[in-house]
Amino acid sequence: MAALVQQYLDLIRSEHAGVAEGALASYIPELTTVDPDGFGVSLSSSDGFVYESGDAALEFTIQSISKPFTYALALDQIGQRAVDAKIGVEPSGEAFNEISVDPATKTPKNPMINAGAIAAVSLVPGATPDEKFALIREFYSAFAGRQLEIDPQVYASEKRTGSRNRAIAYMLASFGVLDGDPDDVLDVYFRQCSFNVTTTDLARMAATLARGGINPMTGRRVTDAAVVRRTLSVMVTCGMYDAAGDWVSAVGMPAKSGVGGGIVAVLPGQVGIGVYSPLLDAKGNSVRGVRLCRSLSEQLGLHFLTVSRDSRATLRAVYQPHDNIRVYETHGDLLFCGAEQVVRTVDRGCDDFRVGILDVSRVDDIDDAARGLLSGMSAALRDRGKAGLIVDPDRVVIPDGSEFENIRYATIEQAVDAAQTFIREQFSDR
Amino acid sequence: MAALVQQYLDLIRSEHAGVAEGALASYIPELTTVDPDGFGVSLSSSDGFVYESGDAALEFTIQSISKPFTYALALDQIGQRAVDAKIGVEPSGEAFNEISVDPATKTPKNPMINAGAIAAVSLVPGATPDEKFALIREFYSAFAGRQLEIDPQVYASEKRTGSRNRAIAYMLASFGVLDGDPDDVLDVYFRQCSFNVTTTDLARMAATLARGGINPMTGRRVTDAAVVRRTLSVMVTCGMYDAAGDWVSAVGMPAKSGVGGGIVAVLPGQVGIGVYSPLLDAKGNSVRGVRLCRSLSEQLGLHFLTVSRDSRATLRAVYQPHDNIRVYETHGDLLFCGAEQVVRTVDRGCDDFRVGILDVSRVDDIDDAARGLLSGMSAALRDRGKAGLIVDPDRVVIPDGSEFENIRYATIEQAVDAAQTFIREQFSDR
Amino acid sequence: MAALVQQYLDLIRSEHAGVAEGALASYIPELTTVDPDGFGVSLSSSDGFVYESGDAALEFTIQSISKPFTYALALDQIGQRAVDAKIGVEPSGEAFNEISVDPATKTPKNPMINAGAIAAVSLVPGATPDEKFALIREFYSAFAGRQLEIDPQVYASEKRTGSRNRAIAYMLASFGVLDGDPDDVLDVYFRQCSFNVTTTDLARMAATLARGGINPMTGRRVTDAAVVRRTLSVMVTCGMYDAAGDWVSAVGMPAKSGVGGGIVAVLPGQVGIGVYSPLLDAKGNSVRGVRLCRSLSEQLGLHFLTVSRDSRATLRAVYQPHDNIRVYETHGDLLFCGAEQVVRTVDRGCDDFRVGILDVSRVDDIDDAARGLLSGMSAALRDRGKAGLIVDPDRVVIPDGSEFENIRYATIEQAVDAAQTFIREQFSDR
Amino acid sequence: MAALVQQYLDLIRSEHAGVAEGALASYIPELTTVDPDGFGVSLSSSDGFVYESGDAALEFTIQSISKPFTYALALDQIGQRAVDAKIGVEPSGEAFNEISVDPATKTPKNPMINAGAIAAVSLVPGATPDEKFALIREFYSAFAGRQLEIDPQVYASEKRTGSRNRAIAYMLASFGVLDGDPDDVLDVYFRQCSFNVTTTDLARMAATLARGGINPMTGRRVTDAAVVRRTLSVMVTCGMYDAAGDWVSAVGMPAKSGVGGGIVAVLPGQVGIGVYSPLLDAKGNSVRGVRLCRSLSEQLGLHFLTVSRDSRATLRAVYQPHDNIRVYETHGDLLFCGAEQVVRTVDRGCDDFRVGILDVSRVDDIDDAARGLLSGMSAALRDRGKAGLIVDPDRVVIPDGSEFENIRYATIEQAVDAAQTFIREQFSDR
Repeated sequence: MAALVQQYLDLIRSEHAGVAEGALASYIPELTTVDPDGFGVSLSSSDGFVYESGDAALEFTIQSISKPFTYALALDQIGQRAVDAKIGVEPSGEAFNEISVDPATKTPKNPMINAGAIAAVSLVPGATPDEKFALIREFYSAFAGRQLEIDPQVYASEKRTGSRNRAIAYMLASFGVLDGDPDDVLDVYFRQCSFNVTTTDLARMAATLARGGINPMTGRRVTDAAVVRRTLSVMVTCGMYDAAGDWVSAVGMPAKSGVGGGIVAVLPGQVGIGVYSPLLDAKGNSVRGVRLCRSLSEQLGLHFLTVSRDSRATLRAVYQPHDNIRVYETHGDLLFCGAEQVVRTVDRGCDDFRVGILDVSRVDDIDDAARGLLSGMSAALRDRGKAGLIVDPDRVVIPDGSEFENIRYATIEQAVDAAQTFIREQFSDR
Repeated sequence: MAALVQQYLDLIRSEHAGVAEGALASYIPELTTVDPDGFGVSLSSSDGFVYESGDAALEFTIQSISKPFTYALALDQIGQRAVDAKIGVEPSGEAFNEISVDPATKTPKNPMINAGAIAAVSLVPGATPDEKFALIREFYSAFAGRQLEIDPQVYASEKRTGSRNRAIAYMLASFGVLDGDPDDVLDVYFRQCSFNVTTTDLARMAATLARGGINPMTGRRVTDAAVVRRTLSVMVTCGMYDAAGDWVSAVGMPAKSGVGGGIVAVLPGQVGIGVYSPLLDAKGNSVRGVRLCRSLSEQLGLHFLTVSRDSRATLRAVYQPHDNIRVYETHGDLLFCGAEQVVRTVDRGCDDFRVGILDVSRVDDIDDAARGLLSGMSAALRDRGKAGLIVDPDRVVIPDGSEFENIRYATIEQAVDAAQTFIREQFSDR
Repeated sequence: MAALVQQYLDLIRSEHAGVAEGALASYIPELTTVDPDGFGVSLSSSDGFVYESGDAALEFTIQSISKPFTYALALDQIGQRAVDAKIGVEPSGEAFNEISVDPATKTPKNPMINAGAIAAVSLVPGATPDEKFALIREFYSAFAGRQLEIDPQVYASEKRTGSRNRAIAYMLASFGVLDGDPDDVLDVYFRQCSFNVTTTDLARMAATLARGGINPMTGRRVTDAAVVRRTLSVMVTCGMYDAAGDWVSAVGMPAKSGVGGGIVAVLPGQVGIGVYSPLLDAKGNSVRGVRLCRSLSEQLGLHFLTVSRDSRATLRAVYQPHDNIRVYETHGDLLFCGAEQVVRTVDRGCDDFRVGILDVSRVDDIDDAARGLLSGMSAALRDRGKAGLIVDPDRVVIPDGSEFENIRYATIEQAVDAAQTFIREQFSDR
Repeated sequence: MAALVQQYLDLIRSEHAGVAEGALASYIPELTTVDPDGFGVSLSSSDGFVYESGDAALEFTIQSISKPFTYALALDQIGQRAVDAKIGVEPSGEAFNEISVDPATKTPKNPMINAGAIAAVSLVPGATPDEKFALIREFYSAFAGRQLEIDPQVYASEKRTGSRNRAIAYMLASFGVLDGDPDDVLDVYFRQCSFNVTTTDLARMAATLARGGINPMTGRRVTDAAVVRRTLSVMVTCGMYDAAGDWVSAVGMPAKSGVGGGIVAVLPGQVGIGVYSPLLDAKGNSVRGVRLCRSLSEQLGLHFLTVSRDSRATLRAVYQPHDNIRVYETHGDLLFCGAEQVVRTVDRGCDDFRVGILDVSRVDDIDDAARGLLSGMSAALRDRGKAGLIVDPDRVVIPDGSEFENIRYATIEQAVDAAQTFIREQFSDR
């Protein structure tokens, strides 16, 4: 039944597959050799189920998407107070690679710009660059649920050409923000930017943030909820573009992009998303990636101000009024994430019943994505030799004249009667 | 049983009641005559139940808290595209009363600064200032659920002394942002800033935003969900201070303050909050108001990145295994808002049972506020001559050695047995 | 002999006469009706002799060129300390009509931007707008040496359309920079900008500044030298463009332009210049005016850092070794202004001699403009039936093979001998 | 007779000798060990005569005073067009050590800030750091008129601690402003900042600029006049502080300060000044140095907008109406520089006469400094057994009731008579 969600994802991805705008990053030769057509997306539910579409297994370098994770590591290791003393949390209104600090505090404005990211690296404990890097690698790998490796060519190339980051590091040293040798810190930073990841890695890393620090695949707590909240907060105001207002308004998911072509996006409590397409806009964001995020948010209702509305929604009760008949009673606002959860709950339990009845009579509000998922559920059950009925007196799911009219009932009693009839007819001779 | 929540609110308010920092707004004489000790807070649940503490019935002028509502009205009336053409959505990095526009677009940076708010007034339909104002008043009143009135002295005083707003209005006119006579627009703006409100009005207005545009008290849809989402998005990035990052991180509720001493804060899907204390900090925000918001967020978990984690939590099922025994089965993450919901659901239904059993065996995570509410529920039921039992095998609610040890059971079967025994003993002779 | 200088001026003007770039100011209709081909220049020596070329008698509105003069009036009337309290002297780095003040002092950055100019108007003494304006008119007229009149249409039009200046005035009022009613101050400002002037008026006004406050035509001291020095200092750093560095480097004359098409430029101690051409560049400066100023500076050496080099130069001595023979002995660096002075000194005294001998044997350095003037002097004397000889052993004026070879001598003795011979031959029989 | 000027200099220096404000530069240990009381000033006339007061022979490091000279060298070597492509000429409005470039051109704003100065070093021809440095050393030494040496301790210390300059150099490299290895360029920059100079060196270097590129002591042309004009222009707008307007207005000499405690100031065509006092203000300028410059400008009239007024002034003629009597006829405005010139001209020629007559009857304006010098001249001549008389009908030099009343005459005839009488009486018997 996961195919229902899969269809949505494929459809949205295909809408943007034809876009040919943007250009490959060219500041190092290694980035110019990738296939410009690469385009993948992965979506992990908060319980770790991953949907993939397109080139979800293709590896690319993480680049700036590393920033929130190293910031989280610094928070995790030395605490918020110590991190705050060196890195701010306000939007900079400047380019990501600006060689500047906050005029008042003389610290980087936030950890999502290079200055703040380099400062974050310097805060990671470790007597040597190798020790720091080992900690970073372990932390990222715990987020991704697998051991990550760096791309040695990209690392070597970044290290050769990084005048601007060198300028930033020496600036930080001059302000006393950076302890130790700037070149050592940069070496770790260049390595961290060179991790190879797939969109599925990013989706899992995002899902770990969505789950408040617990990797839903491994079940391991990678960091605590306060660290995650702080990290996501900074991603909200400083993560994407200088156009934070537009991103919050149109997408509503804390996110971070990298010049490798990736974007990570988090819907707290709900999903983690990884996107990849290496053609970048003038600001260094993946053109198709940004559009895909906008579509996902819009079409699936993945906006943090929307989704929190359905926090008491979805399954109100699950019960079996009779053998082989299970009722799934929903209520509140039903949006994509809630519906996806219902669909998978039904899927998991469907060995235990012959007729599933979805009761949406107490649902207040529903969006198109949820409607599509729920009405498609019936067909999916039929394919398994079962029946799916819907109690929908107010036609929130099944509109007048729908093809699904025959499975719609006005009351639970009518639906249970129909279910009993179905079971008798289908299974009586067994 | 609402008393349980009430106690929390009173406690948090009392923590800040002794704060004497800050100063009354002095730019017009009318604001200097208010009682500096006034301090109230109201919290409306998303279904319209209002908790009040302190001077919740005291009237004060709404001032800049009007900004998000007139912005919402403009969106509602002429659509986002037309509004976007005149008002941006990005943080300004400047003071709220800066006489400036975005250097690129020549429009106000966002609707939360005076320039954007005055532009928003000019976008409200109406042939005359009176027509515009009538629309604004009706809109605000629908949010508050009662007819709002202006304070004529404050209005007259603002009108006399508003050189700075006059400068802003003429600047907007010179850039073609303002249609019509700047003085006419300002007249409406000064009136809108002079509405008298109470913290309970603000809480209801906030709850209407929290509910996506439906006033939970009146049930009336005031505006649609897209307008609300846009408005809340702008409040996230531009609402409080120039320190958006800090506010999002520490409080995590879209909010807006006014120099009248009020603050409105919205936890989407959950609660609306109104706070009042007229002593202001250097930036014009209520000193006690800001601290109260921080405490509410921290102690009650009212952070939009936290609360969305419990979106599939709270009540999983409610059923009666036997007459007079009702089981409330919860799951997922249980934070303040979810627990408050559970407590009131139990409260509403308690005429129908003699023993209520709260099953928390499937709860993943819980915070202190929720723990307090749930463990207090038992005492509240006892006061009504009933019993409250808790199935808590993992001790998520009732720790080892707790005073509530005697109502804790490891399995639902044990709890039901105990409930039956209780009923027999208490009610057999009747 | 003034014709020598005249030729220079005509030549330089004609170089730019064909330029058709730029556009008429269009923010008020009155400015769009002027003849776009109008192009005039006037140059006043520091002793009040005026050279004119092109449309030097054409009237146009003074506009922003009024700014330094009202600033000077404010300094003159209430003193530098009182003026400094309200208006700064630093470059703004912003557009002339920016609605902003210095972030630290909350006063306009300098008097050459609109905010500072409006503040300067408010500092002019006067109980009523008419009184203030009367003082301004008298002051300007004293600079120009004639009674100036305003253009009533331009004034009326400015007054109708000045939203931006109104914004500035109210902003200043809100910061306490402006005393009295902003609309009253603006009325005077709009009147002052509407004065009709010619390039000759501007040249005389400039010459009065060049002479430290004494109008060289009327001999009247209009204001004192300290006021002039302060005014010229501000013109150096804030007068033209935001590109002060480029203007100082390339032109080196304190200057001010107006959207009416005029430019005033001052070479302290030397000359005052007025230019007019109404086609403006994107910044509101006269296209041909700016180019003419650059050419004048370059070709005539009118740069304040250059011209001060010849401060002890030019005439070292004037004596008559014999009847009817007068020697003009020059020394030091000979640039345009010095040579122009020499030429006119010779011109004035030529009734008293029959042969003039110019001794340049002690000249250190000379530029092309000076060379042209001096070598042309001989022909001019011949036209009057006299002779002009040059003692030029090092060929600083007359190069090898020049047409003037026959009037060149290596020593003063040889020149005096030749002069005596000339006199004997030409005048003996009379 | 130079003693007259000397007295002025000593007097002005002594006014500021008691100032104890400011602090030694502390960013490298070497600068903290200097004597905080060191205080010297040297003034070179444009013909190379040097007056010294205080610690004029004390050596200190040139630091940022090197900036205009290396900029001049770059202009001299590769031409203005090539230099302009890499370094702007506009005020930066930022601190001298800001790590920033012009947002539009991506080049340093001007050569007086570190970024521009480092860029200038990179433009100096030379295959190796040593070759570049050799050229710089030769150029500086030609300005100073002696071979300059660096302080090896300061150089080594700067090199060790220069994180901020390293940040600037890498930033420039990242923008393509810097050719070659940033560390190599910095090495030359640190060496150039470490030159040991005295105030007399600085005065001579300044006088070379004042003379348009000719060292008045050696008579050697170091660079051409166009290079000097460009350099001085940039010093006018960008040299001192971010407060260019105030400096131009109050001092009116292109200048540059260094954290070593030195200041160089140039009055074009007139004088070069070097000042030293190591106690710095918050902006890194010598406290006493700045005050001394202000006093010199104010009391001696050394302002470029003032001094150009007297460009045709001072000596109009020198003649001997009789043996042993020489008349010095002055005219125009007589300020300090002109009077100093007169005094020294008289001094130089006084072997040739017994009575010197100063004719000031055609002087228009005079300041106190000039008045003091001229009236003191008489006493100086008397000390040499000669007489000095003054023709001063309008009492511009000798006021009513002055001690010098006895040498004042109303007409030149009366003075010549008196001179003849004096000669007869004093020398008849010889």
